[in-house]
Amino acid sequence: MTRAAILLAAGLGTRMRSALPKAMHPIAGRPMLRHLIAACEGVFDRVVVVAGPGMPALERAAAPHATVIQHDRLGTGHAALQAAPLLEGMEGDVAVLYADNPLITAATLRRLLEARERADLALLAMRPADPARYGRVLPHEDGGVSRIVEWKDATEAERAVGLCNVGVICAAAGNLFAWLRALTNSNAAGEYYLTDTVAAARAAGFRAVAVEADEAECRGINSRLELAAAEAAVQARLREAAMANGATLIRPESVTLCFDTVLGQDVTIGPDVVFGPGVTVEDEVEIRSFSHLEGCTVRRGATIGPFARLRPGTEIGPRAHVGNFVELKATTLGEGAKANHLSYIGDATIGPATNIGAGTITCNYDGFAKHRTTVGRGVFIGSNATLVAPLTLGDGAFVAAGSTITAPVAPDAMAFGRARQEQKPGLAAAFRDQRTPAKKEQP
Amino acid sequence: MTRAAILLAAGLGTRMRSALPKAMHPIAGRPMLRHLIAACEGVFDRVVVVAGPGMPALERAAAPHATVIQHDRLGTGHAALQAAPLLEGMEGDVAVLYADNPLITAATLRRLLEARERADLALLAMRPADPARYGRVLPHEDGGVSRIVEWKDATEAERAVGLCNVGVICAAAGNLFAWLRALTNSNAAGEYYLTDTVAAARAAGFRAVAVEADEAECRGINSRLELAAAEAAVQARLREAAMANGATLIRPESVTLCFDTVLGQDVTIGPDVVFGPGVTVEDEVEIRSFSHLEGCTVRRGATIGPFARLRPGTEIGPRAHVGNFVELKATTLGEGAKANHLSYIGDATIGPATNIGAGTITCNYDGFAKHRTTVGRGVFIGSNATLVAPLTLGDGAFVAAGSTITAPVAPDAMAFGRARQEQKPGLAAAFRDQRTPAKKEQP
Amino acid sequence: MTRAAILLAAGLGTRMRSALPKAMHPIAGRPMLRHLIAACEGVFDRVVVVAGPGMPALERAAAPHATVIQHDRLGTGHAALQAAPLLEGMEGDVAVLYADNPLITAATLRRLLEARERADLALLAMRPADPARYGRVLPHEDGGVSRIVEWKDATEAERAVGLCNVGVICAAAGNLFAWLRALTNSNAAGEYYLTDTVAAARAAGFRAVAVEADEAECRGINSRLELAAAEAAVQARLREAAMANGATLIRPESVTLCFDTVLGQDVTIGPDVVFGPGVTVEDEVEIRSFSHLEGCTVRRGATIGPFARLRPGTEIGPRAHVGNFVELKATTLGEGAKANHLSYIGDATIGPATNIGAGTITCNYDGFAKHRTTVGRGVFIGSNATLVAPLTLGDGAFVAAGSTITAPVAPDAMAFGRARQEQKPGLAAAFRDQRTPAKKEQP
Repeated sequence: MTRAAILLAAGLGTRMRSALPKAMHPIAGRPMLRHLIAACEGVFDRVVVVAGPGMPALERAAAPHATVIQHDRLGTGHAALQAAPLLEGMEGDVAVLYADNPLITAATLRRLLEARERADLALLAMRPADPARYGRVLPHEDGGVSRIVEWKDATEAERAVGLCNVGVICAAAGNLFAWLRALTNSNAAGEYYLTDTVAAARAAGFRAVAVEADEAECRGINSRLELAAAEAAVQARLREAAMANGATLIRPESVTLCFDTVLGQDVTIGPDVVFGPGVTVEDEVEIRSFSHLEGCTVRRGATIGPFARLRPGTEIGPRAHVGNFVELKATTLGEGAKANHLSYIGDATIGPATNIGAGTITCNYDGFAKHRTTVGRGVFIGSNATLVAPLTLGDGAFVAAGSTITAPVAPDAMAFGRARQEQKPGLAAAFRDQRTPAKKEQP
Repeated sequence: MTRAAILLAAGLGTRMRSALPKAMHPIAGRPMLRHLIAACEGVFDRVVVVAGPGMPALERAAAPHATVIQHDRLGTGHAALQAAPLLEGMEGDVAVLYADNPLITAATLRRLLEARERADLALLAMRPADPARYGRVLPHEDGGVSRIVEWKDATEAERAVGLCNVGVICAAAGNLFAWLRALTNSNAAGEYYLTDTVAAARAAGFRAVAVEADEAECRGINSRLELAAAEAAVQARLREAAMANGATLIRPESVTLCFDTVLGQDVTIGPDVVFGPGVTVEDEVEIRSFSHLEGCTVRRGATIGPFARLRPGTEIGPRAHVGNFVELKATTLGEGAKANHLSYIGDATIGPATNIGAGTITCNYDGFAKHRTTVGRGVFIGSNATLVAPLTLGDGAFVAAGSTITAPVAPDAMAFGRARQEQKPGLAAAFRDQRTPAKKEQP
Repeated sequence: MTRAAILLAAGLGTRMRSALPKAMHPIAGRPMLRHLIAACEGVFDRVVVVAGPGMPALERAAAPHATVIQHDRLGTGHAALQAAPLLEGMEGDVAVLYADNPLITAATLRRLLEARERADLALLAMRPADPARYGRVLPHEDGGVSRIVEWKDATEAERAVGLCNVGVICAAAGNLFAWLRALTNSNAAGEYYLTDTVAAARAAGFRAVAVEADEAECRGINSRLELAAAEAAVQARLREAAMANGATLIRPESVTLCFDTVLGQDVTIGPDVVFGPGVTVEDEVEIRSFSHLEGCTVRRGATIGPFARLRPGTEIGPRAHVGNFVELKATTLGEGAKANHLSYIGDATIGPATNIGAGTITCNYDGFAKHRTTVGRGVFIGSNATLVAPLTLGDGAFVAAGSTITAPVAPDAMAFGRARQEQKPGLAAAFRDQRTPAKKEQP
């Protein structure tokens, strides 16, 4: 017995006013479609994504799962039917889900499959605070669902029903595809509606039941305003989980997490911190305000920020410090090393206990290729140094402030690359006098 | 038939605890008074602002509209009467508005004028969630308003009326000024109250009607707490409009917009971004977190931030990149050009496809005047370069890292302005030994 | 008559999942324990803190107040009893408070002491919106409290009582310690409960009364989620006080204040500003977005930010400017002086009207010690200058852009420390050709 999910993701999302397919809009740093796939992967054996034509990025996001294309937009029932070549004839249950309902949890999907075992068709329903114009799920005398009535077709009594249709259904593959093939499009829009399978099933003597889920999980995303609301809901979930796990978020409402952010115990996150994808923060790290982290690992006891930017490929060693207006990219900062002020360190390996002075810049790019900088242990790099890669600084080396370093520096050597200071007495005063002639003429 | 608005803006705003006139406190980057003027300009032919004495900044903000001065603070009725020399005798309607009620919309003002056609006096009213101590608008048997009763004078039955007085009124110029001249100040405060015109009108046999407006529009601003609440309301309005127009605001509640911010379609605004006045962002631009933009244009497909600051007079070309800890001022960055790290570029023109290295600084100021830097197409500026303006770098020029450039660089030339590197073997170790004598004595 | 408070602070805070004692977790920049101590200091003559073993940082935070150690964790009653060696036999009242109830105000503590004068035991109670599983405070026919019943032992009728136990009590020292010594631990947890003193007092014929306090004050902090909620409550309180005092917080919800932040009148705080401890901002200062201030004073009329970082020991003079990506540490910036772009100024004294160019770095650290930089009045420091401390620049001196300055500069002198520019015609083109051979072969 196989379990399969069909994810409908062909929508253009006209109300999003976007060139991006709707399912590709991200929530907490991950496209909606990937959120739904992640929930499905723990529950279903197979996932098939129904895309629209000309959505190569969406197909890549769906991988390694199969994608089928719905060439004509003839409704949700028609969309689900596009998966038939891959799933028809399979033994087991098939659920049909929507990429713009991406917050449904694996737990809810499991309850849907369990309900399917008690009836021929299981559908997902919710009791929203404001049922508004949702279709209503009408009860059957057998305790299940008799049918779904669209709001505009519903009587006052039917509208008083609080249980609303989410649109997600689950049935045995054989039944599902038979019902889908039997759908008609004799409605105002001329579309084949997935929802009509419920009536079709009942008419053929099958039994349908509803599984109730939380409104928050079931919210559909049709506009950027709804996208922002979903982002807020997911952020709240991620922040609470991080706090329950032993991280302090001083003002959690000001912190932006990513779907995969890992925060250790006794981590402190200051106000106004942004995490992009792929960040792991070990125990006892402090991330101060206005820091921006992506694709990096911060080892135990390190201190980051304020105003630090860690870009992908960066690893901050234990008890290391990264301070303000410092950018690190594809760089390993050794244990206890410090880069505290106004620096750009890219494509570099910095040894333990090394001190990067204020204003240090690695010149990792010559306009054509990137080059690496390798700095040893216990090196002291004076302020405003320019390190032209490829470059190696040996252990214990010292670079004088203001130097441009283009050649390797031996261990324990001191390197200078700056001009000698000259002074012109009185020249500043003369310069001022020259530039302010008007003042000279005044008494 | 002329339509005129008198805007009462003489208030000092004692409860603001500010030296700034109350009407000059900004909301979404624009003084309250200018918000109200903007709403009026589409509706009224003439606008007259009533200022207090010694408010030159407010008079400038009112321009090109006329300002009259209320020298003695004798109440709102007295304030409105100061406009008589400019408006008395005119044919048409005059509305009296308050600069500390700045969120009233043009649509509401139009409804007020329409109501005036149905009665001699039209007034604005609201039904606040908490009517508190607002004056109540009492109904007349003719379906209009009989009178306004102040909360402290109201009976229990009158206090039960939910319709509250906003204070805004509209009448034919002749009537209005006649009623204003007839006001008395026989009340506890010894002031002439604009609101008393309603009773005066009714007493003389005129008809008064109320126009209901949303509470949110009608909120008065008397303290900094109320100012912040108004800011929040306007920000919410601006954010929703931007999202409806096709911009993604990942965490809209963390984005500060300005009254005139223009965001194109498929623009993405990261968390924690601040817009000052005068910003236009074209389609498909990404503005990343911790960016601060004022008075600039960002062309299609450009990427800004995180940690970027765009100051007035800046134009970012199509597909150009501005990265972290980069400040641009009065600068044009060409198509596809990049300034990605720790740079200050001021008073400059940067050609297309040019690369500004990390740590580049334009020295546009010599202590007396600002000078321009002109950089050609496809130029490569090495890291930590210092560009002393006035300066021209030709197309395809290359500036070596760490250079100070004070003279023009020819097209395709390579310019150096840095000292040769020297190395003193073992000197770093000797320096350490000298500075840590205690350690030398240890085994 | 002495008044004493025993603060129970021995808790490990298992639910915090932290190595830090619970009472040491900060709210608005100050450990919970210090918040409670601050409320007590205006009300009680003596404060005794009950710590757990191995909490030296907590003992330091308690100073100058005495700390006693609860070596065995045998319950709140046992914890309070540890203070007996210091307080038993004293004449007057003793209150027992909890360090994880840190938001109780001095006003409430005064009401508790006043209530004690009307009864033998006064306890603090609240009426939470959701009484949940709090213990209920049951009324006595004498108008006081008969006893406290734990939720799990309460009947339905008792659970219907809205008055809940906070846990704080107050009694005469003699009574309190007698009741504490008489407690038994015959309960499921085998602990001595402070709450049981109420029943003990009543059984011995004493009278108990309840003092109601606001739920917000009484909230206990047992998890990081509750810590964040307390932070939000305190921040709201601090922001409202700052606004009432005449500061504009444009988007107050985005500003992080500290318990001791002082903001003058007509101060404007932009969105996204963070204050650490010890900041005083005088009147008419503007702090722009993305600024981070700790331990500093900003004098009247100065402008800070955006993207400015002021670190401890910094004083910004009247009308001085600190701009973007600028860090100041232990530095005095003179009246009207400017440091507007990408600079690190540490351990420095900068004279009035001096201009610090973009990219200026003070090299205050040589790897072993910090050295000072002293800059006179009206000095002009060109962009990208490197100032190697110890260093003195005389009044009116001028440092050329791109210079490294290691020796003193005389007043009115101009100092250079940079190499002469050289140009290699055509070399950039040759370099490009060499790096892009493929392109050369194309037609």
